[in-house]
Amino acid sequence: MFPKSFRKLIENFSALPSVGPKMAERLVLYLFKQDKAKLKEFSENLLAIQDLKSCRKCFNIAEDDLCEICKNSQRDPRIICVVEEPLDIISIERTGAFQGLYHVLGGVLFSGKDESLKINELEARIKKEGIEEIILATNPTTEGDATALYLKKKLSNSGIKLTRLARGLATGGDIEYADEITLSSALTNRRELK
Amino acid sequence: MFPKSFRKLIENFSALPSVGPKMAERLVLYLFKQDKAKLKEFSENLLAIQDLKSCRKCFNIAEDDLCEICKNSQRDPRIICVVEEPLDIISIERTGAFQGLYHVLGGVLFSGKDESLKINELEARIKKEGIEEIILATNPTTEGDATALYLKKKLSNSGIKLTRLARGLATGGDIEYADEITLSSALTNRRELK
Repeated sequence: MFPKSFRKLIENFSALPSVGPKMAERLVLYLFKQDKAKLKEFSENLLAIQDLKSCRKCFNIAEDDLCEICKNSQRDPRIICVVEEPLDIISIERTGAFQGLYHVLGGVLFSGKDESLKINELEARIKKEGIEEIILATNPTTEGDATALYLKKKLSNSGIKLTRLARGLATGGDIEYADEITLSSALTNRRELK
Repeated sequence: MFPKSFRKLIENFSALPSVGPKMAERLVLYLFKQDKAKLKEFSENLLAIQDLKSCRKCFNIAEDDLCEICKNSQRDPRIICVVEEPLDIISIERTGAFQGLYHVLGGVLFSGKDESLKINELEARIKKEGIEEIILATNPTTEGDATALYLKKKLSNSGIKLTRLARGLATGGDIEYADEITLSSALTNRRELK
């Protein structure tokens, strides 16, 4: 009952993660009501990300062979933060608290993509780049922890300092509502006030 | 830290209703991992809906001057279902229980777009088209009810039968969890079993 292009765009949106068919319909109706210039820009940006690559060195999203972070000579090449996905880089960069380089694994172990994880590539970097510390910044989940543990064992003979992000209470959070595991981590890792 | 096209596409998605910045990031990363043919198709479909119009008669979404429903000579032109938005047409068509034509108001009263509602256009159709019944199928909300009431008053001298969709329990629903207003409607409108 709707024009073909309208129905096809609903299908495109429905295929996205966490977008159901009803939401897809609402999004397409919303876009239909936008002015044409906005639609054109959206369409062009979609086309443009076709040309993006994975950084040859760290597997972050890149315009060229190397991503903007690997290209930046201001960054400290002696410390590497290993993350699951490129989006984790956004969050860490937002803190402004890390000046080193990254390495995107592309997922975690036991998730069906063990083969495609960039672990060999990480080892190759260790041999080549004079790295002094590796922060294993996989997510604080069962799979993330297991992957960090696996990497720790694999890299423990390399002589490189291996660290993991601190676990504890979220700032602004409420002790009353903290889950037991987080609260227990916060107790174990308590800091002396000086 | 991410390429410009990637960041711009995140902005495009963030601007959509009920898509937050985090979800936008995840959607764009997902799209980045898709194959290029899919991205191209998505981009082309976005461009294609630029060319869609509003049906000259009922204001449904249309490829030409008239929408597919208004063009269909099998439909009964004596009965018109007045809805708020084109998406309501999808839901009603899915039931297969309605064979008449539609009229899309484009919203409801008291929502700040009173001026743009296609009420005059509905009256013009009444004068011209030999309509026998109008179903006021605005949403069962305060604004939808108010709009239906307003239309009822405005059209009561036209001699046309005016109806409203039945209110009651949702099929498959649970009396225990029905809200008071719905349950009260279901009681008031109870049907005799024959």
